[in-house]
Amino acid sequence: MQSRYFTINDVPQGTPGRELFELHETALPDLAEGEVRIRNSWLSVDPYMRGRMSGVKTYIAPFTLGEPLEGAAVGDVIESRHPRLAVGDKVRHMAGWRDIAQLPGDQVEPLPGIEVPEQAYLGVLGMPGMTAWTGLYQIAGMQQGDNVLVSAASGAVGSLAVQLAKARGGTVVGIAGAPEKLEWLASHGIEAVSYRDRNAQQLTEALQAACPEGFDVYYENVGGVCLEAALNTLRTGGRIAVCGMIARYNAEGPAPGPSNLAMVLIKRLRMQGFIIFDHWNDYPRFLEEVGPQVANGEIDYAETIEEGLERTPDAFLALFEGANTGKMLVRL
Amino acid sequence: MQSRYFTINDVPQGTPGRELFELHETALPDLAEGEVRIRNSWLSVDPYMRGRMSGVKTYIAPFTLGEPLEGAAVGDVIESRHPRLAVGDKVRHMAGWRDIAQLPGDQVEPLPGIEVPEQAYLGVLGMPGMTAWTGLYQIAGMQQGDNVLVSAASGAVGSLAVQLAKARGGTVVGIAGAPEKLEWLASHGIEAVSYRDRNAQQLTEALQAACPEGFDVYYENVGGVCLEAALNTLRTGGRIAVCGMIARYNAEGPAPGPSNLAMVLIKRLRMQGFIIFDHWNDYPRFLEEVGPQVANGEIDYAETIEEGLERTPDAFLALFEGANTGKMLVRL
Repeated sequence: MQSRYFTINDVPQGTPGRELFELHETALPDLAEGEVRIRNSWLSVDPYMRGRMSGVKTYIAPFTLGEPLEGAAVGDVIESRHPRLAVGDKVRHMAGWRDIAQLPGDQVEPLPGIEVPEQAYLGVLGMPGMTAWTGLYQIAGMQQGDNVLVSAASGAVGSLAVQLAKARGGTVVGIAGAPEKLEWLASHGIEAVSYRDRNAQQLTEALQAACPEGFDVYYENVGGVCLEAALNTLRTGGRIAVCGMIARYNAEGPAPGPSNLAMVLIKRLRMQGFIIFDHWNDYPRFLEEVGPQVANGEIDYAETIEEGLERTPDAFLALFEGANTGKMLVRL
Repeated sequence: MQSRYFTINDVPQGTPGRELFELHETALPDLAEGEVRIRNSWLSVDPYMRGRMSGVKTYIAPFTLGEPLEGAAVGDVIESRHPRLAVGDKVRHMAGWRDIAQLPGDQVEPLPGIEVPEQAYLGVLGMPGMTAWTGLYQIAGMQQGDNVLVSAASGAVGSLAVQLAKARGGTVVGIAGAPEKLEWLASHGIEAVSYRDRNAQQLTEALQAACPEGFDVYYENVGGVCLEAALNTLRTGGRIAVCGMIARYNAEGPAPGPSNLAMVLIKRLRMQGFIIFDHWNDYPRFLEEVGPQVANGEIDYAETIEEGLERTPDAFLALFEGANTGKMLVRL
């Protein structure tokens, strides 16, 4: 059986171009004992993957040039030599960026039994959703009634963070760019603020207008002016969960940090970075809490879908242009 | 009775000049019920006072132009209309920057009974010492064996932080400037690293040489290149206690923050600012733990002393030139 997969052919500097990605085809070997073969139906593309293209080990090994890229995917088992997995099982695994995956069954997990579309396990009930929940509650220690600010608020992570925060009272403000994203936020009861054409001072003023009492929690996905404005508008004792800094992922060189970092001292802020893989033991608890809310429609989620394996690099690159509302997915 | 005291006559921009400070003399009124009169013997000058000169309320009210400046002081009660305080009592209070203080006895505390020179209650057993202890243990959560980095390591706060850290094993590195400060650190078993003539990259390399395994805790007193180099050399899961950012206190405008703040995410760092006044309930516990160590000489402390009330502004201004090893004091 043939498998088509993407590689990168170089370590990109700055914003990667489409030509970085190469589509290959290979004949898969027979299944070894314990392996399964999966026909992927949905692929996930996520901002963190940019870090894996840097050639440098950070919290996760870099992609190997010429080897298939990796990422979350869901699909159907089409052949199995693993005792726990049978043909027809719906599964999630990390052998994405390809159509047919073949890997040890121990690296594959059956989809949980909650009644949601399968691709939800790549988004609102997958890594991005788990990231929103962990950052808000475990890292930022959000309490009932806290005022919460979220950047990239209509993205895969942010769009759940704002809804979880909203359900616990308090004012929730989401920063986004495109008009349709601001509308999506507003339609979910979130105060939507645009970062477009605003410097840090102007964004600060817009946030102050949206939430004059200031924020108890800032959920950080972006960096840059968003962080600077957040530091200005947090209250004393505020907490920042640093989930991402997408503004910097394609930077070609160091750029200055916020000029108001002394706010950390003046306001006794706590700022904490986290990586969701460190917290994966809590996934069943997350699923138990958030899964039913997604299934019964209390929590909404948006998706931006590209069609076909060939579009996977385009879907990935579009993340950095802010082209997605909600989870960016590729449907095969 | 006459009291001589300092005021400021303007809100300084940038580094204050000596002419900002004016010495006045006034006749004190008779003691009101509940008041005491104190002959100050030692005055404290501290970097945080610069913030009170800004005319802006931060975590503490600004100094009022034309009114006596305030700050920690110790002295002897020379007259009392307070039931708890008698003539001859040694006390600590916040009516510094003057020779004779008159204030409600409820704002005055008798010195604890540990056998140390009285001015130690302005330094190693006072606010700076309490700040070192709180930042290291309560804020940064230092554990036995942690490698610890301290900036302004020979200052009033840093010089206790390095000794407390050293007593719990691990490698302790202190950043300082002047040769005599580096010597003081080395003589206490601390790896001393100079920030002088080093940019962030060069300081990073010097810190890596001093502690190749990296740091678990960074005790932040300075900001600027020290923070940038610390972010580069902290280990995954490292904690930063932000006690001060003296490099910025006299800045006339915003300056960029560290260009590598994304390390907070990559290394899952926790960075937390704190103000010691929020933690003052723990002072008895601090005194119980650290007091005996100071009294029996296990913990050393340095002092830099200016003589005479007239020199108080000079002592204060010298803080920003790094002129002090250990606590900067004025002896009256």
